Amino acid sequence: MTELQKLSPDELANLRSQLQAEYEGYKSRNLKLDMTRGKPASSQLDLANDLSVILDAKDFTSTDGTDVRNYGGLDGLPEMKVLFAEILSAPPKSVVVGGNSSLQIMHDTVVRALLHGVPGSAAPWQTQKPKFLCPVPGYDRHFAICQHHGIEMINVEMNDEGPDMTAVESLVAGDASVKGIWCVPKYSNPTGVTYSDGVVQRLSRMPTAAPDFRIFWDNAYVVHDLYDTSSPLQNILDACRDTGNENRPLVFGSTSKISFAGAGVAAMASSDANVADCKRHLSIQTIGPDKTSQLRHLRFFKDIAGIKNHMKKHAAVIRPKFEAVSAIFKEQLGGLGIASWTTPRGGYFVSLDTLQGCAARVVRLAEDAGVKLTSAGATFPYGKDPSDRNIRIAPTLPPLQQVELAMQVVTVCVKLASVDKLSHRT
Amino acid sequence: MTELQKLSPDELANLRSQLQAEYEGYKSRNLKLDMTRGKPASSQLDLANDLSVILDAKDFTSTDGTDVRNYGGLDGLPEMKVLFAEILSAPPKSVVVGGNSSLQIMHDTVVRALLHGVPGSAAPWQTQKPKFLCPVPGYDRHFAICQHHGIEMINVEMNDEGPDMTAVESLVAGDASVKGIWCVPKYSNPTGVTYSDGVVQRLSRMPTAAPDFRIFWDNAYVVHDLYDTSSPLQNILDACRDTGNENRPLVFGSTSKISFAGAGVAAMASSDANVADCKRHLSIQTIGPDKTSQLRHLRFFKDIAGIKNHMKKHAAVIRPKFEAVSAIFKEQLGGLGIASWTTPRGGYFVSLDTLQGCAARVVRLAEDAGVKLTSAGATFPYGKDPSDRNIRIAPTLPPLQQVELAMQVVTVCVKLASVDKLSHRT
Repeated sequence: MTELQKLSPDELANLRSQLQAEYEGYKSRNLKLDMTRGKPASSQLDLANDLSVILDAKDFTSTDGTDVRNYGGLDGLPEMKVLFAEILSAPPKSVVVGGNSSLQIMHDTVVRALLHGVPGSAAPWQTQKPKFLCPVPGYDRHFAICQHHGIEMINVEMNDEGPDMTAVESLVAGDASVKGIWCVPKYSNPTGVTYSDGVVQRLSRMPTAAPDFRIFWDNAYVVHDLYDTSSPLQNILDACRDTGNENRPLVFGSTSKISFAGAGVAAMASSDANVADCKRHLSIQTIGPDKTSQLRHLRFFKDIAGIKNHMKKHAAVIRPKFEAVSAIFKEQLGGLGIASWTTPRGGYFVSLDTLQGCAARVVRLAEDAGVKLTSAGATFPYGKDPSDRNIRIAPTLPPLQQVELAMQVVTVCVKLASVDKLSHRT
Repeated sequence: MTELQKLSPDELANLRSQLQAEYEGYKSRNLKLDMTRGKPASSQLDLANDLSVILDAKDFTSTDGTDVRNYGGLDGLPEMKVLFAEILSAPPKSVVVGGNSSLQIMHDTVVRALLHGVPGSAAPWQTQKPKFLCPVPGYDRHFAICQHHGIEMINVEMNDEGPDMTAVESLVAGDASVKGIWCVPKYSNPTGVTYSDGVVQRLSRMPTAAPDFRIFWDNAYVVHDLYDTSSPLQNILDACRDTGNENRPLVFGSTSKISFAGAGVAAMASSDANVADCKRHLSIQTIGPDKTSQLRHLRFFKDIAGIKNHMKKHAAVIRPKFEAVSAIFKEQLGGLGIASWTTPRGGYFVSLDTLQGCAARVVRLAEDAGVKLTSAGATFPYGKDPSDRNIRIAPTLPPLQQVELAMQVVTVCVKLASVDKLSHRT
């Protein structure tokens, strides 16, 4: 392939006509394809259908004798803590089991810190004009929590090993109002990057001006490998304990993309002080999460081996979709010098970077051709991608053929927008 | 019976010896009876056991086509809104369905108001030194929310028709920092009182200094009748709309004491503005509550008739326990002039008032004899009953014979504490 930058104006004009025709061809098909959200496909949800009937109508007692139908169990059944301890690589005593949403645990953790501070805080965060570091591109719902509650966000570039640690170290060292950082450390949303050992170590030992700095470690894809070999991630809880910063990390996870996306079980793992603080707040907020759901999950998965085995079935469903995205991007965009993209080994997203200033136009073109993509900018704080380059591709929900078709459309849109940019048309 | 006040010192001393012997008799039995919390009995939970298996392993679609296993459904399945609309006497559009805990919805509503205010607020409540009115005796977990978040609580006496409205009207009219009132309007916790039409009307039309005053209407026992005839409660949403105060009431309810206490479905109903505000916050906090639980409830109960029919089965289980409490109190304490108690027609509690200054001692005596009661003072803000009189009796959890035995012990403790008080021993 020739890089498009090297084409003459006439060649570009010719190419543009071809692409426009191709684009109009897709448009005339009245497609309706939705690639916006990282939702599991029905065929993935089907893998756990037996969850629904596994608790028979007389079996409601957990191994510690708890009647899971009644009130209580503020921080989860002991055996559910054991299972999450294995998933999140933490001791069971460090685990707090929540409801069906790790996003909610994260949100509520931020809200509690705003109103009350965290262990080590001199005052509630809200009184300290708190700021969060946001590795970009990142997860829009993390950023939405900050924006909603008036927490200022500071972009930090993601590279192949995780966030740019030189920038992170400088920002946390220099400003005591920097209270947190959002991390999706394994198969990061959307880049697919797994943080390197070096990054985890620097995060754990970096001096912070704030005595109550917290790492929000959203390990959403901890067991979500696409291939048999998992990308290793260092244990942030251990690393921070070893550097004397045991209260720094808050680790989150859930079975949302293991069992049922809307009806899984979520949990947090952290230090004794953070866990005690969390329980103190929880005891005011609720009498406890749904323990029948916990028992269903325990009966169905049994243990971490059961979870890992189940994740292989997920991988078998979604790996072909990821590979189709890669193959089509390579075939259609490879060597043109107009785009780069990730080929993740796990997680839920592919991150596509266009030429500067083209992402919003690509999303608009795709939408006009019936392919809905996540809004351009969504992967950045305040919805603003300063380079207007990043597009998050979510290949899991639609059937394979739809993914393929949608990606063909997207690549035409990328080429069209790129040609226009190179021709100074836009 | 002779009123104990009329006994001579010698008669009191004799009675004390008898009572002490009786008390020691119970003590020697090493009882372990727990009457602390308003939890349903296993036999009540059994009534809904089929909830657990009613969703077969291939049926996950609600009537609007939603796959309940996947993400989404922020404010509940449309058909679940319809069911709660019937339970809470509100239009379906006014309903927001939550997770398994109405306490959590209430808590989160308070927290959002603290951080962001509510429709009509000039500023977040937190910046206005907010106060709440607390009809007493009342529900300890309501008061705990205020205490935890630094909201000052002001006691208002409960009478046979609800809170003392003259006091309420004066307090809300004179102080713009009075932002809310906690109400359990039907079969009130713990008095069993249902608010009269007059109280509901006065609550709906009273002028409030705060433009953003809210009634937290915890209708926890809306369908929880012990007898065929239900105590009528006027519709607070309608009453407030009629008086031009449609944003004033926030109505809460759940199926916790209908289906499974720890695995029910909770909801809120309110005005368009309050519902929109709630959804705006919810969309940041979570992707949505567990819809499989909602669908199970819908399949099991079907409609409000199904709910009401089910509640008759609950009543059949717990009515004998309530009647045993009444009978034993009447037999053992009647005519002695040392105690009064409620005989509720619904809800989960009996409220027992001792002579002034005796409640804490009664609870201590009972505990020493192996009968755990809710702490004295628990039904008041900050855990402080200014008269040290009120004890909340929760008869639902233990089997009938244990309730009877526990109440026998409690009446001996009440008499012992009363005799000591009258003899100026304590």
